[in-house]
Amino acid sequence: MPNDPTSAKPRHKSRRRGRTSVPESPQRSLRYRHLKNPFTPQPIFSDDEVANIHATALRVLEELGVKILLDEARDIFAAAGATVQDDMVFIGRDIVEAALETAPRSFTQNASNPDHAVTFEPGALVFKPGAGCPNASDRVRGRRPGTLEAFRETVKLCQSFDVIHGFSPCVEPQDVPVHLRHYATMTAQLELGDKTLFVYSRGRGQVEQGFDMIRLALDLSDEEFDSQVWAATNINTNSPRMLDRPMAQGIIDFARANQMLIITPFCLAGAMAPVTVAGALTLQHAEALMGITLAQLARPGAPVTYGGFSSNVDMRSGSPAFGTPEHVKMQLGSGQLARLLGLPWRSAAGSASVTTDMQGAGENDMGLWGCLMSQATICVHSAGWLEGGLSFGYEKFINDLEVVQSLAELCQPTDGSSDEIGFDALAEVQPGGHFFAAAHTMERYRDAFYPPLVANLDNFGTWEAAGAADSATRATAIWQGVLDTFEPPAKGAERAARLADYIDRGTAAGGAPPLD
Amino acid sequence: MPNDPTSAKPRHKSRRRGRTSVPESPQRSLRYRHLKNPFTPQPIFSDDEVANIHATALRVLEELGVKILLDEARDIFAAAGATVQDDMVFIGRDIVEAALETAPRSFTQNASNPDHAVTFEPGALVFKPGAGCPNASDRVRGRRPGTLEAFRETVKLCQSFDVIHGFSPCVEPQDVPVHLRHYATMTAQLELGDKTLFVYSRGRGQVEQGFDMIRLALDLSDEEFDSQVWAATNINTNSPRMLDRPMAQGIIDFARANQMLIITPFCLAGAMAPVTVAGALTLQHAEALMGITLAQLARPGAPVTYGGFSSNVDMRSGSPAFGTPEHVKMQLGSGQLARLLGLPWRSAAGSASVTTDMQGAGENDMGLWGCLMSQATICVHSAGWLEGGLSFGYEKFINDLEVVQSLAELCQPTDGSSDEIGFDALAEVQPGGHFFAAAHTMERYRDAFYPPLVANLDNFGTWEAAGAADSATRATAIWQGVLDTFEPPAKGAERAARLADYIDRGTAAGGAPPLD
Repeated sequence: MPNDPTSAKPRHKSRRRGRTSVPESPQRSLRYRHLKNPFTPQPIFSDDEVANIHATALRVLEELGVKILLDEARDIFAAAGATVQDDMVFIGRDIVEAALETAPRSFTQNASNPDHAVTFEPGALVFKPGAGCPNASDRVRGRRPGTLEAFRETVKLCQSFDVIHGFSPCVEPQDVPVHLRHYATMTAQLELGDKTLFVYSRGRGQVEQGFDMIRLALDLSDEEFDSQVWAATNINTNSPRMLDRPMAQGIIDFARANQMLIITPFCLAGAMAPVTVAGALTLQHAEALMGITLAQLARPGAPVTYGGFSSNVDMRSGSPAFGTPEHVKMQLGSGQLARLLGLPWRSAAGSASVTTDMQGAGENDMGLWGCLMSQATICVHSAGWLEGGLSFGYEKFINDLEVVQSLAELCQPTDGSSDEIGFDALAEVQPGGHFFAAAHTMERYRDAFYPPLVANLDNFGTWEAAGAADSATRATAIWQGVLDTFEPPAKGAERAARLADYIDRGTAAGGAPPLD
Repeated sequence: MPNDPTSAKPRHKSRRRGRTSVPESPQRSLRYRHLKNPFTPQPIFSDDEVANIHATALRVLEELGVKILLDEARDIFAAAGATVQDDMVFIGRDIVEAALETAPRSFTQNASNPDHAVTFEPGALVFKPGAGCPNASDRVRGRRPGTLEAFRETVKLCQSFDVIHGFSPCVEPQDVPVHLRHYATMTAQLELGDKTLFVYSRGRGQVEQGFDMIRLALDLSDEEFDSQVWAATNINTNSPRMLDRPMAQGIIDFARANQMLIITPFCLAGAMAPVTVAGALTLQHAEALMGITLAQLARPGAPVTYGGFSSNVDMRSGSPAFGTPEHVKMQLGSGQLARLLGLPWRSAAGSASVTTDMQGAGENDMGLWGCLMSQATICVHSAGWLEGGLSFGYEKFINDLEVVQSLAELCQPTDGSSDEIGFDALAEVQPGGHFFAAAHTMERYRDAFYPPLVANLDNFGTWEAAGAADSATRATAIWQGVLDTFEPPAKGAERAARLADYIDRGTAAGGAPPLD
C-alpha cells in the first residue's frame, strides 16, 4: 500500500457474476480533503432552551465564578473588569459578549503542504485521529506504554490517509523524558508528514520552542508565523469550573501568537458535570466561554474553536462512557450552542471498548454520526481511540477509517441528472437481465463505488478457506503495509535537518520542563 | 435475563469514583415501543431531480414495461387499461397516479398484544430483525443450515426486546418441508410471541392458510380479520423489471384480504440495476410503483408500504455490498421518493460481513443511521443479518441491538428545562469537585442514562483479568440467558392449541405446496 492512497491500486479479484472480461482496477479518488458537511444540523433543544442554557452559563460565570490557578490569567480577567477574589474569577456577561465579538468565524490553519491547509468554519468537516493515549495497542506487539516509535508510526498512518486532516498526538511517547518530548514529537510531525501541526500546551517553554521549531523547519519569518495560523493546541478545563496553570498559560500563549486554540471542557455527566444532558452542556458552555474569553482578552481576533466533549459515566461502573445516546444528544446540543455563537466547533467520537470489537465500532460510529448530524467542524478521536483514550489501537484505527471514509463519501454530491438516471440503460437491459455489460455501466464502473479499505465481501466458504480472518485481524496487514511502504514527504528530511542544531542546543540547555 | 427487559435488573458493580453508598440498580425503562423519528430527513437530490426520477420511472412503466409472469396479475392490469403484450405489461401513468390516490398514508397492524400494534405512517420508526436467512450462526453451535429450533429461538429473541417491533422470518427452517413450513412458523410466532406477524408469500395456498391460522389463533371473525391489518408480507420484485408468480399472487392475495404489503425491489447498482445511485433508484421506484399499483387495483385502499432496498455490488468481487456510502445515499434518495408519494416506506440496514466483527458493525450502523436520516418508516434487517442475508448471527443480533436501542433512545425527547439545567447543582459543587453526591444527581441517577446491553466499561486490567472477552464473546451469554429464562406470553399456549387440529388436518391433506 503506497503512501498516498489517492494513487492506491486496490487488490483485484475476478467478479463472481456475469462480466466476461476482467475489468481494470477501480480508480476512484480517495482524496477526501476540504470536506463540507452536506447535512442539515439536527437539534435536540428548542431555541428557547438553547437561549436558557446560554443565559445560565453566563450566570455561572458571573455569579459562581471559575477557579483559575494562573496569576497571569486572573490579571488579564481583572484588567477586563472581572471580579477576582483569591483564585476565583467572576466574569460579567459584558466581558464574555465583547470577547465573542472578536472571535473569528473562519480561519485557516496552514500546513507545510499548502493542499493540506484546513479552513475551520461552520459547515466544514475536519477529521482528526484518536489522541492523547498513554498506551499503544496492536495485534502483533500487544498493548504497551507509548513510545516514540509508536508516535512516529501513528504520524505515518495519519499522513497516509487523506481523510485524516491533521496530526494529533495519538500516542504519548513515554520513553522520551517529558522536558525533551516536544523536540521528538515536533520532529516527527515535520519530518514524516506535511499536514497541520499539533503542539501540546505544557507550559510556556515547550510552547515557545514548539513555535520556534515550526518557524525554523518551514523557514518562516516571525511575521509570516504571526500573521497566519500554523499550530493548534487543545485546552481541557478541569471541570467543574476550574482552569489549571498549563492550560491557562496555553490559552494566553497561543492567543498572543495568533495560533489555534481548541477550548474543550470534558464534562462527564454524573461525575464532573451534572447528571443531565442540559446540565452538563450548561457547564461545558460556561467553561468554553471562559476559555474563549481569556483568549480574546489576550489577543482580540485569536483563532479559537468552541469545544464540546461531553458524555456520561456508566452507571454500573462509574467509568466514562462514549458513543452512548447521551453522548450523541450532547453532540447535537453542543452544535446548537456553537451555532448560537457562530463559531467553528469541535466534537469527538471515540470508544470506551478495550478492543477492536463491535462495541468499539458501535461507540465510535455513534460519535461519528453525531459529529455529522450536529455539524461539528472538527471530529476529534475519529479513529483508533480505545479504552476512553487510554490506548491507541492500530487495527481499530484502520477499521474506524472505513467508516470515516464512508462519511467523507457522503459529503460528495450525488448526480441526479438524466444522464445518471440512464433511461437508455434501463431500456437496453431486458427484464430479468443484468447491467454488467451495459454501456452506462462500462463507462462508469471503474470509479462508481467507494472501494472498501478493510471490508471483505467474499462469501463464507471463500472467507473460511482463506483463514476466516475477521476485520480486526485483516487490519493488521493493512497498517503493516502502510508502514512498510511509507515514504516521507519529499522535503521532510530537510525540515528535520533544520531542527537538529536547535534541538541539540535545547537539549544541552535542559529542554523545557512542563509547567505544573 | 428476564423475558421482558422492561423489568430487567442490570448487573450491578460498585462504582469506581467517589460515591460512598452503593446506589440502587438503574431502573431506566427499555420500553421502546411506538417510536417517532425526531430528525429532519436529509436529501441527496434537488426537488427537480426527484421529480425527474419519478417521471422517468413512470416512463419506464409506460414505455419499457414490466414482465409479469402471473396471468391473473396481467389480467388485472389489462382491465385497468394497461397494454399487455405476451407477458409484458405497459402501465400508463394515469393508472399509477390513480392507484397512488387510494394507497393509505397511515394504517395500523394489529398484534395479539394490543400494545404491540404498530402504526405505519410517515414519521414512525419501526425496527424489524434480520430476515430471510437460510443459515443460523452462533459461537456455540457454529454456522449451520436453518432449523425450526433456530426459527423458534429467533422468535424468542425478538419477543424479548421491545425495540424489535414485529416478527420476520429471521432463519429459514429448512428441516421442515416447505409445503408444511408455514404451519410451523405461524405456530412459533403465535405461541412464543405477541408481536406483529409475518406471512411469506409463497403462493395462495400458504397465504390463505396463514390467514386462517391467524383468525383461529386470535379468535377473529372474518369481518374482524378483513377490516383490520393482522399480517404483513414482503414482496421482492425480480429486478430489473420482472415480477414472478408467487410475488404477483402475494400482492393480489394480501391486498384483497386487506393485509399489509411491503413492496421491495432489491436493486443492486451495477448488477440488477444501473450502476448509478440515480439509475438504481429510478428502477427501484418504477418497480415499487408497479407493485403498489397492482395492490391498489386488486383492492383500492389496501395497506402498502413503499420499499427500497438498493445498494451496490463490490467492484472487486461482484458481491452484494451493504452499509456502503452508496447504500446510504440510496436510502436518503429513497426517502425523498417515498415522501413525494406520501407513503410509509421501508428501508434496511444489514451487513455483508460474515462474522461479528467491526466490518459487520460498521455496515449495519451505516444502514441504521441511513434509516434514521432518510426517515424510513420501517428499518428491516436492523439486527443479526450477516453475509448479506445468508446467515442470522445470534451474537451479531445482540451487538446490533445495542445500536438499535441507542437510536431508540435518540427518539426520546431531551428535557432542556431550568430544572434539568440545574443551576443549584452547579452552585452546590465546588470547582474541581464532583457531582456524584449532588442532590440533582441523587434524584436522577437511577435512570439518567441508557444502560448498555453488551458494552463493557471495565478498564483494561479488570477486563483482561476477567477473561478478555470481546463484545462478540460476551453476547453469547446474553442470548443464552434470554433463551434460558424465556417465558412465552400468557396466552401463547392457548393460541397454539387452537391451531393444532387445523394443522393436523392440513398436514394430512398435503399441506400447501408453494407456487413456482
